[in-house]
Amino acid sequence: MIVEIISVGTEILLGNIVNTNAAYLAEKCAGLGLSCYYQDVVGDNEERLTDVLKTALSRADILLLSGGLGPTQDDLTKEVTAKVLGKNMYLHEPSKEAIAAYFQKKRMEITDNNWKQAMVPEGCIVIDNPNGTAPGIIIEENGKHVVLMPGPPNEMIPMFENAVMPYLNTLEPGIIYSQTIKICGIGESKAESMIEDLIDAQTNPTIATYAKTGEVHLRVTAKAEDEKEAKKLLKPVIKELKSRFGNHIYTTQEDVTLEKAVVDLLLANDLTVSTVESCTGGMLAARLINVSGVSEVFKTGYITYSNKSKRKIIGVKKAMLQKYGAVSPEVAKEMAKGGALFAKSDVAVGITGIAGPDGGSDEKPVGLVYIACSVCGRVSVKECHFSGNRAKVRESSVAAALSLMRESILAYYSEVTFGSKKS
Amino acid sequence: MIVEIISVGTEILLGNIVNTNAAYLAEKCAGLGLSCYYQDVVGDNEERLTDVLKTALSRADILLLSGGLGPTQDDLTKEVTAKVLGKNMYLHEPSKEAIAAYFQKKRMEITDNNWKQAMVPEGCIVIDNPNGTAPGIIIEENGKHVVLMPGPPNEMIPMFENAVMPYLNTLEPGIIYSQTIKICGIGESKAESMIEDLIDAQTNPTIATYAKTGEVHLRVTAKAEDEKEAKKLLKPVIKELKSRFGNHIYTTQEDVTLEKAVVDLLLANDLTVSTVESCTGGMLAARLINVSGVSEVFKTGYITYSNKSKRKIIGVKKAMLQKYGAVSPEVAKEMAKGGALFAKSDVAVGITGIAGPDGGSDEKPVGLVYIACSVCGRVSVKECHFSGNRAKVRESSVAAALSLMRESILAYYSEVTFGSKKS
Repeated sequence: MIVEIISVGTEILLGNIVNTNAAYLAEKCAGLGLSCYYQDVVGDNEERLTDVLKTALSRADILLLSGGLGPTQDDLTKEVTAKVLGKNMYLHEPSKEAIAAYFQKKRMEITDNNWKQAMVPEGCIVIDNPNGTAPGIIIEENGKHVVLMPGPPNEMIPMFENAVMPYLNTLEPGIIYSQTIKICGIGESKAESMIEDLIDAQTNPTIATYAKTGEVHLRVTAKAEDEKEAKKLLKPVIKELKSRFGNHIYTTQEDVTLEKAVVDLLLANDLTVSTVESCTGGMLAARLINVSGVSEVFKTGYITYSNKSKRKIIGVKKAMLQKYGAVSPEVAKEMAKGGALFAKSDVAVGITGIAGPDGGSDEKPVGLVYIACSVCGRVSVKECHFSGNRAKVRESSVAAALSLMRESILAYYSEVTFGSKKS
Repeated sequence: MIVEIISVGTEILLGNIVNTNAAYLAEKCAGLGLSCYYQDVVGDNEERLTDVLKTALSRADILLLSGGLGPTQDDLTKEVTAKVLGKNMYLHEPSKEAIAAYFQKKRMEITDNNWKQAMVPEGCIVIDNPNGTAPGIIIEENGKHVVLMPGPPNEMIPMFENAVMPYLNTLEPGIIYSQTIKICGIGESKAESMIEDLIDAQTNPTIATYAKTGEVHLRVTAKAEDEKEAKKLLKPVIKELKSRFGNHIYTTQEDVTLEKAVVDLLLANDLTVSTVESCTGGMLAARLINVSGVSEVFKTGYITYSNKSKRKIIGVKKAMLQKYGAVSPEVAKEMAKGGALFAKSDVAVGITGIAGPDGGSDEKPVGLVYIACSVCGRVSVKECHFSGNRAKVRESSVAAALSLMRESILAYYSEVTFGSKKS
């Protein structure tokens, strides 16, 4: 089936906010096996919204709208959609009660215009919104399915996942079932070339690759009569991918990030961690501390941007800085060792590099970054060459550091296990 | 005039990338006084792109397209646009030479399909692309202006700023001239209420507010015969805004970020800085280190997420942690003092708070954050209550910390100057 994604909001037209809703919905729809040919953005304007709705109804089976369900007179997505589809509105008592309860919980006063949010088109499916006051709405008319969701991502995303996605899954006979495999330590083109034969030969399941900074996500999607059948179709493909990418796969769970995988690995091995950052200036620590529950493993982070700080705070020797320069594998190693020593942590990471735009030379160009990781005294170091601006180089460095931490911990234990631990 | 923003690319339709180009162009167009009623996203597909172009030509004066100018057969924005506008294509020699030079500089081999990028519609304006191989193109036909730009933001943005924006400025008699005023330490609704009378009474210049995390940007836009006249119109409005917002204005320059303003203030006063972060886990340091040239002022950053780390690394007393708890104004102050002491810096910031989702209580709910700033021994502390998820609370904390740093430094010097310095 064909889906069209329509974002309603003057703030998007004015460039006040980036349209992340459309990207989110587009990725989800691709995962559901729906074809998306157009995305539209339109303001809170009756005439123009009518225009967009009519065009979309003429070329798509499913319309996913977000935004314009607020309590003010400006918000008219629901009213215009009902009009275009020829539906009257009525007061939906359960929504009215939910709105009253929401305000009571927040200890806020209800103003009269809030009841507007409890008005819904006749014959529609009303979706509960535990994160806000605008209920979601699904209208079915002439084989078309029009879904209205609130604009704020923290309301729209849970509503889509809990109610809209299951609904969309019922529209076609059979179901679409996806599994994501997340890979680190391999670039997108290398990852693609490693499974070119699988991608070329694919019919059902299909494999799609998504490049993220320092990661590649593979989404394997099967279409089948039921979930059991779909999982059966996925099984051999997932097995083949696991055998090709091995330890580079850090998770097969949708909601596990790379930093979470690293923190889980630290927790599982009862290891503590510290970070010593120069060019990334705290971004690695910040990503680790994204993970709720990291306090069990995170000891201390040091941001030693200057040479002086590298010397005085974590004990990198002056002679070493002079001989090799701050951006060198030797100094990266000393930073990691210093982190482990001063924070008394089992694992420590040192990052030093040239993020640009200044500071590069022929010998050490912008984008050159050294990352060292110490695991229980065993230090490995990685030389990276990143492209892009200052922000991009720093982001890539953090992703590479997380990837190296994972590799180093796995390598340490595999070697300890097999009795060949190096000093 | 009316502008329509069209993004071409299957990767946007699949949700593989977020459409930041549209947000960028929309904000710029608003600044140019152009009205944007629709944004569209369409894939690399002849029939559907034709459809979008025809619709846009029927309702807008200016079409801004980005994407689909690459060398492969998939990329057909230029070819389809030429066809819709009835233009033949020819080989544009200067573009061919530029492409050859680009490949030579990058020491890459040219493949035959690259010459496709030097083909342009007859009668068009060709825009040089120093950051890639796809030239930009402007076609004028029947009073319509169609602008084609490459998709990668690092090619599109400089091309828009250097060539497209000046071109758009010539389309209407007179010019549009904008100035941005960036404010911190005041929320959006408060900022709006402080200038409600100005916004209500506005005709030319106009004032628009843009809410960013922890900041508000005001854009004042004048329409006039020439730049001199526009500046004359802006002057009294800017003066009035300056008198209303005073020291809360941290810059009137488009390209100065809050972290840059803080670093500039540190540089101007010959002050060094250190950071001690708990819940933000390095994000404040990372933002300061966004600023190229920060090495002059940044001494050391400490990430002391655990109580143990707060005690051992920066000397917060155990008794104090027990008496007040880690999230308290007292501990925030000790963190700032400890940072100044151990890093030997003039300015130091301590941040401690509950970012969630866990760890909140009735007394200390999720979103409660204390930020302390020490300037040459004088410490001030701020209690903040942020809403949103873990990432949002942390982001808001960092913005508030930058704002407090600025305030504290300014207050310190104003009091030193007027002889009323407190201990």
